[in-house]
Amino acid sequence: MNVQIRETSAVATAASRLAIADCDIHPATRQPSDLHPWLERRWIEHMATFGRPARHGWQSGPAYPKSQPNASRRDAWPPEGGRQGSSLAFMQAQHLDPNNVQHGILNPLGSGQGVQNPDLSTALCSATNDWQLAEWTGKDARLKASVVVNYEDGPAAAAEIRKRAGDRNFVQVLLLTRTAEPLGARRYWPIYEAAAEAGLPVGIHAFGYGGQPITGSGWPSFYIEEMTGHAQTCQAVLTSLVTEGVFARHPKLKVILVEAGFAWAPALAWRLDKTWKRLRAETPHLTRLPSEYIRDHVWWTTQPMEEPEPREHLLDTIGWIGWDRLLFATDYPHWDFDDPTTCLPLKLSEPQRRQFFLANAQAVYGPG
Amino acid sequence: MNVQIRETSAVATAASRLAIADCDIHPATRQPSDLHPWLERRWIEHMATFGRPARHGWQSGPAYPKSQPNASRRDAWPPEGGRQGSSLAFMQAQHLDPNNVQHGILNPLGSGQGVQNPDLSTALCSATNDWQLAEWTGKDARLKASVVVNYEDGPAAAAEIRKRAGDRNFVQVLLLTRTAEPLGARRYWPIYEAAAEAGLPVGIHAFGYGGQPITGSGWPSFYIEEMTGHAQTCQAVLTSLVTEGVFARHPKLKVILVEAGFAWAPALAWRLDKTWKRLRAETPHLTRLPSEYIRDHVWWTTQPMEEPEPREHLLDTIGWIGWDRLLFATDYPHWDFDDPTTCLPLKLSEPQRRQFFLANAQAVYGPG
Repeated sequence: MNVQIRETSAVATAASRLAIADCDIHPATRQPSDLHPWLERRWIEHMATFGRPARHGWQSGPAYPKSQPNASRRDAWPPEGGRQGSSLAFMQAQHLDPNNVQHGILNPLGSGQGVQNPDLSTALCSATNDWQLAEWTGKDARLKASVVVNYEDGPAAAAEIRKRAGDRNFVQVLLLTRTAEPLGARRYWPIYEAAAEAGLPVGIHAFGYGGQPITGSGWPSFYIEEMTGHAQTCQAVLTSLVTEGVFARHPKLKVILVEAGFAWAPALAWRLDKTWKRLRAETPHLTRLPSEYIRDHVWWTTQPMEEPEPREHLLDTIGWIGWDRLLFATDYPHWDFDDPTTCLPLKLSEPQRRQFFLANAQAVYGPG
Repeated sequence: MNVQIRETSAVATAASRLAIADCDIHPATRQPSDLHPWLERRWIEHMATFGRPARHGWQSGPAYPKSQPNASRRDAWPPEGGRQGSSLAFMQAQHLDPNNVQHGILNPLGSGQGVQNPDLSTALCSATNDWQLAEWTGKDARLKASVVVNYEDGPAAAAEIRKRAGDRNFVQVLLLTRTAEPLGARRYWPIYEAAAEAGLPVGIHAFGYGGQPITGSGWPSFYIEEMTGHAQTCQAVLTSLVTEGVFARHPKLKVILVEAGFAWAPALAWRLDKTWKRLRAETPHLTRLPSEYIRDHVWWTTQPMEEPEPREHLLDTIGWIGWDRLLFATDYPHWDFDDPTTCLPLKLSEPQRRQFFLANAQAVYGPG
């Protein structure tokens, strides 16, 4: 009962801990049938017959080491059984309570996003949204849901966003980075329009798969490259959002880039500005420097945080991005979880700590 | 005769200017038949019949604005006719003499690299190498040639490198970044083996095309994204070289990354180190941190240099990379030429200037 001991000692210290936001928590279903209450019978029968084929990257399945089943911490199996992340009680005991998480953003993965059949994808995403309300936010007010959408079908995604608009349990729209086209492309514009209209930020989480090699020079050989490559894809996504004019069209739209690092942001912005100054005739729909759109519209979750030696280099990077733009995240229950008590490789002032761990998230997502 | 006036005044001041190296000069043929003296008749006939189909990126042709024909400066047309970069006399008058270029590295593009027919690609690359000797290095001792190779055929590329090994007119092997697979893959290993054996650095120039979308989330819409994307592809290339063990196998191999920026390097190295520390079991062939391989094996040309506001941010980045690792380059005659008299957005001490503009290149390529 090692887990039990760990919980007890952790809870004992929680009261004295700073309340935090965790902007990347992954809830899981115990089994696929958990979604059945919110699926029409036709889709249950469809999946029994045809399965739910999805675009696949990285060989034939998800790109995680098998030594970390479900990409998760080996101490995160719920004692009552089921996948890591599938038990609210155990998530509370292992993470929310001891780490004093006051504000937890749910980002369901494997939720139907990327499923090839567009109507099935839409149905699964919508069921996932109902499931978040019934099983998570309805049972623990600290948790907030993401509107999961079938992003490859812009109008269907927009309809799902409008369906959830106004429900304060939902605090963002969730997209993934590896899509059929870079996320600024017009097929995705209905999503941003609906999100802006609903006043919802758009969280764009690393991963997904759109059907092409994951680097600009083809398929790499190693998982290390796959992991590192998320930062590159996210650079392409941000470039696309800026260049296509998504921010120019929606001056109040907020985008949160989740789990793709942030230390690459200054170099990207510098390069974009330099290139745009010479080539701006190509994009008359942009009226400001690319870096200005990025500064005004983009937030970044911290996990996995880059860890330079010497650590002070990170301060230079954060100085460029802005302390108000970083949102603390653990990625619970995934294997590369960042522990809030040890993850920050820097000494912060008390106001900086409060901003970093809680206030920035409240400013983006609302007070909770 | 504006050009004449410009030359004269420029030459007048050249003597007082610091001698510099230019590590990215693009010589061009006046017409394709310039290579015929070094091509077997069968290939001349083959191209007359079949052309020279190449993998194509970015729509149907090269990704340059049409307002800059041949991707070049509009003042770089040789007065005697022919494409920009095709006249040694004009290159001397417009660039080498006035800018006091003591050491100019030739990087021929469109040279047969990426041509689909493997034997034709090999023949064109080899003819390009002979042409560099006859038309350029043989006529101006300041210029040094690159061994252009058909990189998609590892053994053929290695044979071409071995053919040129020992000829001091060649100072590097030239590859491009967008290839069929990331450049650390085994199909390319014969290239590194032959380069290491010959004591030649490997220059990897942005551009090329390997057959897939140029970002990890598909095709972008704008040239600005294409230009910005080179930095992302180059990150994938460097990740691949490190992770596949190219540097671990060849402890003396030098790689120069050309025309893809450098400000992204620290963030990439931090992410690679963090990921590798957790996943090193996947790559037992690596015995050191990824960042250590990068520090020991990689140099970077400057053009196009990132230009942050405030400019001092660039100093932090260069501090990480190392002042000894940057090689000045203009990209002459291309449209985004960096002028050595104005490009450096920083105040440097005199020893730093000498290192940056000349000594670093001499350390990598030899004294000239």
